[in-house]
Amino acid sequence: MSSEEEPSNQRQILFHYWAQWSKWKKYQPLSHIRRYFGEKIALYFAWLGFYTAWLLPAAIVGTLVFIIGIFMMFHDIPTQEICSSGDKYKMCPICKVCPYWNLSSVCPMFQAGRLFDHGGTVFFSIFMSLWAVTFLEYWKRMNATLIYRWDCSDFEDIEERPRPQFAALAPMTIINPITGEEEPYFPKRTRFNRIITGSMVIIIMIAVVIMFLISVILYRAIIAVIVSRSGHFLLVSSASRIASLTGSVVNLLFILLLSKIYTALALFLTKWEMHRTQTTFEDAFTFKVFIFEFINFYSSPIYIAFFKGRFVGYPGHYNKLLGIRNEDCAPGGCLIELAQELLVIMVGKQVINNIQEIVIPKLKTWRHKRNLSESNKTGQDNVMKQFWESDYKLLPYSGLFTEYLEMVLQFGFITIFVAACPLAPLFALLNNWVEIRLDAQKFVCEYRRPVAERTQGIGIWFHILEVITHLAVISNAFLIAFTSDFLPRLYYQYTRASNLQGYIDFTLAYAPKSFDLKNNVTCRYQAYREQNGRYSLPYWNLLAIQLGFIIVFEHVVFFIARMIDMMVPDIPEAVAIKVKREQYLAKQALAENKALIEVIDVVNPTQPGEKVSK
Amino acid sequence: MSSEEEPSNQRQILFHYWAQWSKWKKYQPLSHIRRYFGEKIALYFAWLGFYTAWLLPAAIVGTLVFIIGIFMMFHDIPTQEICSSGDKYKMCPICKVCPYWNLSSVCPMFQAGRLFDHGGTVFFSIFMSLWAVTFLEYWKRMNATLIYRWDCSDFEDIEERPRPQFAALAPMTIINPITGEEEPYFPKRTRFNRIITGSMVIIIMIAVVIMFLISVILYRAIIAVIVSRSGHFLLVSSASRIASLTGSVVNLLFILLLSKIYTALALFLTKWEMHRTQTTFEDAFTFKVFIFEFINFYSSPIYIAFFKGRFVGYPGHYNKLLGIRNEDCAPGGCLIELAQELLVIMVGKQVINNIQEIVIPKLKTWRHKRNLSESNKTGQDNVMKQFWESDYKLLPYSGLFTEYLEMVLQFGFITIFVAACPLAPLFALLNNWVEIRLDAQKFVCEYRRPVAERTQGIGIWFHILEVITHLAVISNAFLIAFTSDFLPRLYYQYTRASNLQGYIDFTLAYAPKSFDLKNNVTCRYQAYREQNGRYSLPYWNLLAIQLGFIIVFEHVVFFIARMIDMMVPDIPEAVAIKVKREQYLAKQALAENKALIEVIDVVNPTQPGEKVSK
Repeated sequence: MSSEEEPSNQRQILFHYWAQWSKWKKYQPLSHIRRYFGEKIALYFAWLGFYTAWLLPAAIVGTLVFIIGIFMMFHDIPTQEICSSGDKYKMCPICKVCPYWNLSSVCPMFQAGRLFDHGGTVFFSIFMSLWAVTFLEYWKRMNATLIYRWDCSDFEDIEERPRPQFAALAPMTIINPITGEEEPYFPKRTRFNRIITGSMVIIIMIAVVIMFLISVILYRAIIAVIVSRSGHFLLVSSASRIASLTGSVVNLLFILLLSKIYTALALFLTKWEMHRTQTTFEDAFTFKVFIFEFINFYSSPIYIAFFKGRFVGYPGHYNKLLGIRNEDCAPGGCLIELAQELLVIMVGKQVINNIQEIVIPKLKTWRHKRNLSESNKTGQDNVMKQFWESDYKLLPYSGLFTEYLEMVLQFGFITIFVAACPLAPLFALLNNWVEIRLDAQKFVCEYRRPVAERTQGIGIWFHILEVITHLAVISNAFLIAFTSDFLPRLYYQYTRASNLQGYIDFTLAYAPKSFDLKNNVTCRYQAYREQNGRYSLPYWNLLAIQLGFIIVFEHVVFFIARMIDMMVPDIPEAVAIKVKREQYLAKQALAENKALIEVIDVVNPTQPGEKVSK
Repeated sequence: MSSEEEPSNQRQILFHYWAQWSKWKKYQPLSHIRRYFGEKIALYFAWLGFYTAWLLPAAIVGTLVFIIGIFMMFHDIPTQEICSSGDKYKMCPICKVCPYWNLSSVCPMFQAGRLFDHGGTVFFSIFMSLWAVTFLEYWKRMNATLIYRWDCSDFEDIEERPRPQFAALAPMTIINPITGEEEPYFPKRTRFNRIITGSMVIIIMIAVVIMFLISVILYRAIIAVIVSRSGHFLLVSSASRIASLTGSVVNLLFILLLSKIYTALALFLTKWEMHRTQTTFEDAFTFKVFIFEFINFYSSPIYIAFFKGRFVGYPGHYNKLLGIRNEDCAPGGCLIELAQELLVIMVGKQVINNIQEIVIPKLKTWRHKRNLSESNKTGQDNVMKQFWESDYKLLPYSGLFTEYLEMVLQFGFITIFVAACPLAPLFALLNNWVEIRLDAQKFVCEYRRPVAERTQGIGIWFHILEVITHLAVISNAFLIAFTSDFLPRLYYQYTRASNLQGYIDFTLAYAPKSFDLKNNVTCRYQAYREQNGRYSLPYWNLLAIQLGFIIVFEHVVFFIARMIDMMVPDIPEAVAIKVKREQYLAKQALAENKALIEVIDVVNPTQPGEKVSK
């Protein structure tokens, strides 16, 4: 199957016009894909292409917002105040063995933080929330159009057969109420018990994820202490940065490892739950894995976004977990740390995934071919092979689950945490341009031709995407309110100085007298507290503003989303008219046909319900 | 049609077994209603009966909550503190000419307020929000069951004809893309312009409603001043109560008047908008009237719940509107005032409506009959009349719009403002027991037999009910957080004294020194402010708690509602199996029929598509 010769069969056509890098800017030949692979796989590629196309505007707006951030960074008065503060702000140590430090030393980090944390990000969060809703609405229309064109509109599997694995293991039989035929049966009660047990296992695995998360947190704390003690100047100054970066990488490795283990476990559990049909089996499996992967991939960003640095206490009264002081965010703020974590997980995952997708099928094919050639070594290797013979040496098709999962998790990253990283849609776009052709090549060159399946849509994944868009709105509201600097700055602008002069001083509290006396130094720390450690009035004002912002943001965005949902019809008008026209014609034809049958019945009377053998 | 004789036709059967007060505790004979009136009307009565049945648990729980309130009222320490305070708390005047007053004088009002304002109400709000969601879910199931039983599952009007009124006025014709036939056409562009103009009229009418609302507010303020000046002791002491009660009644009269005017206007506008089919016409009319009636009926409760008493200012710095000081709630709190307003509007409206429903059709029938008998005075009045002759003298059927509207507005009252009035479901239940038989009598005794219509559901009303349940959750969250005393008490319990001793003192601010000096009296007023008029720290703490409560309440309730939505299948399993079984058998029959036709085609060849004349 090389690209030089003129394509002579469907697979070669697909390879030639679809599964090549050079075709990255062409539309996919969906009708050809459908003809060769069936509707289910064609719909996956249609969805992937549609999603990638919609990523383009999101990526452009995101990049613009990022560029605006660069300009803002240089004209930001608080940043200038920090960078020129010298030793004006002596800060309390951020860990037990850490030294006192000057706020001016975090100038570069603070500048970097401004890239992500400005008014443009708030706009972009709202934009992306509405983008996600609109994307799903228009996908519904696209779906309806394709399904109509492929003649699957009325397809509903009313008599889906039991899975062969189910039939083999089911202990008794029952009369199917729909078909009236006898078929294998597994008691509902037992299945219910097994599902409960399965859920327990999921909960245990989630607990394992959280344990890993805590161990990564402890790892960070310990590394920070060790690096600080090493005494090397360069290392010490960026101790927390080194700790958090290596922490992210360790976390990513844990995530990928747990993901592999859990997927195998979920497959076993789902088999054991004895689902009757392939559809319920796949839905149960998808649901299980998705819940787990969601927590696996998002727990660490969620921790950084909403928990890290919130339970630190204050100098002299630090809160502790397992004897180690609760982590504070690095001096640039939690948002920059979140952005870094996201980039490591998302980009790292995509790179590793893509490499896997290129290398693993090739390795598997190679092993598979070797096994096959070993088993018929006696054969005539030099004889020209038939297509079906070489095709047989390919890998068996293993379902679309991993493809969808990867894309849906990516969708989560670019919507749920978009306030922290406006560049995420751009990375997603770049990845997907590669992904489409990579998947295409995998299907064309590595897999055997799968059994074609019909479908009406992308199934449970659509509902998962809907849930993600809801979570995205909530998450962005909280991110902007609590993690970003947006509201404190606004509050300061309206109540104190409109040009933000003195904002840095405003955000720094004085350490309690007792703490100062113990160490004989007056130090500051980032919080809205009075010197006795109690929250100050601005803290409470700000908290009310933040909570009010969440309420307003959520209501406005959900309201607009609902409006979009109502305004955009799920089926394009042109398709709706065609469908109705067909129904109308069918009804007319039926009326004529009835007349025909009546005429015929007179000519050649048949017993009603009697089977006519040809 | 008297009930003594044995029923001899369908209408008499319905009268005998359905449209009588004595049948109030019987199920409705839905199949008979359907057979005589058609699916559309039967579905309305099915919905009404279903809703009434579901009101029963809500009414029981509501009554229990109310009874708990009675017990709590007697054991409430703040109430006891107020009632026994004597002249301990000298309060600032609540209007310009009002006197200073003692807090102890509002003891009865405060006690009454406790009936509605306690922890049970919070529970009941959550209960009713989930009740509403579950009710809609189970109605979907009931709907699916009935529609299946009545064989309307596949009913979709794909070739609905234009309305006669539309056909008469449309200026041009077009080929219908579905039926391929020529039919009248009205340019979309012009219709769009007319809809825009119509929307403007709605906005103007809404502005009128708000003007009436403001005039009622001013009326209350002026009445309060006048009554206070009258000098009569009993009147003075309850000046604000008299003002608010008469205000509610005036408001109700305004509402009913505006409602009549607007409905006529909306009908005219909807006709003018030239909707092609009866369905779009009805939807447009319903939407218009509902939006207006919603604002008409709910604006006054919304004002009391969320705006009244919030922009009062403080002694010496009162905020003014049109030169009159902004209204404060009566001393018992805004919640008791809201409860009173609700009872007046809801119960008043129901009573007036029911009287109208009894009297007006009778009057109309009488006039109708007189007109008819006048026009054929020459006739033989004493001759025994045929049924069709006496039926002709009845009123023509005018649609279900007003029936649905009444019930949906009631549903709004019992869900949106339930936190203020746990007795609302009980009143709704009592009303509906009457309503069912009243509507039944109207249909059986006053109206001509309408043309039967088929339908798949209750149409746009279902979506309106869904929107109301959403609004209910939001509204109850805000009511509990801001209007009720629940959170301030909880805050006081956790931060100061767990038995609420001293709570009353805590809620009262001292008037500013300047105000005290001017009048030479030290007075208090209800607010969390410092003596200089600025908000105190507890105010900000409490505000943060209130906003946090809203966020938690909404997220939890919406999440549970979504879970319920997911867990309850829209179609009962038994019905789903029957539908699938039928589809399966139809498919089998089709396959057999195909074979039959093939056999016959050999015997008696016909041109494909050729019409066979019988």
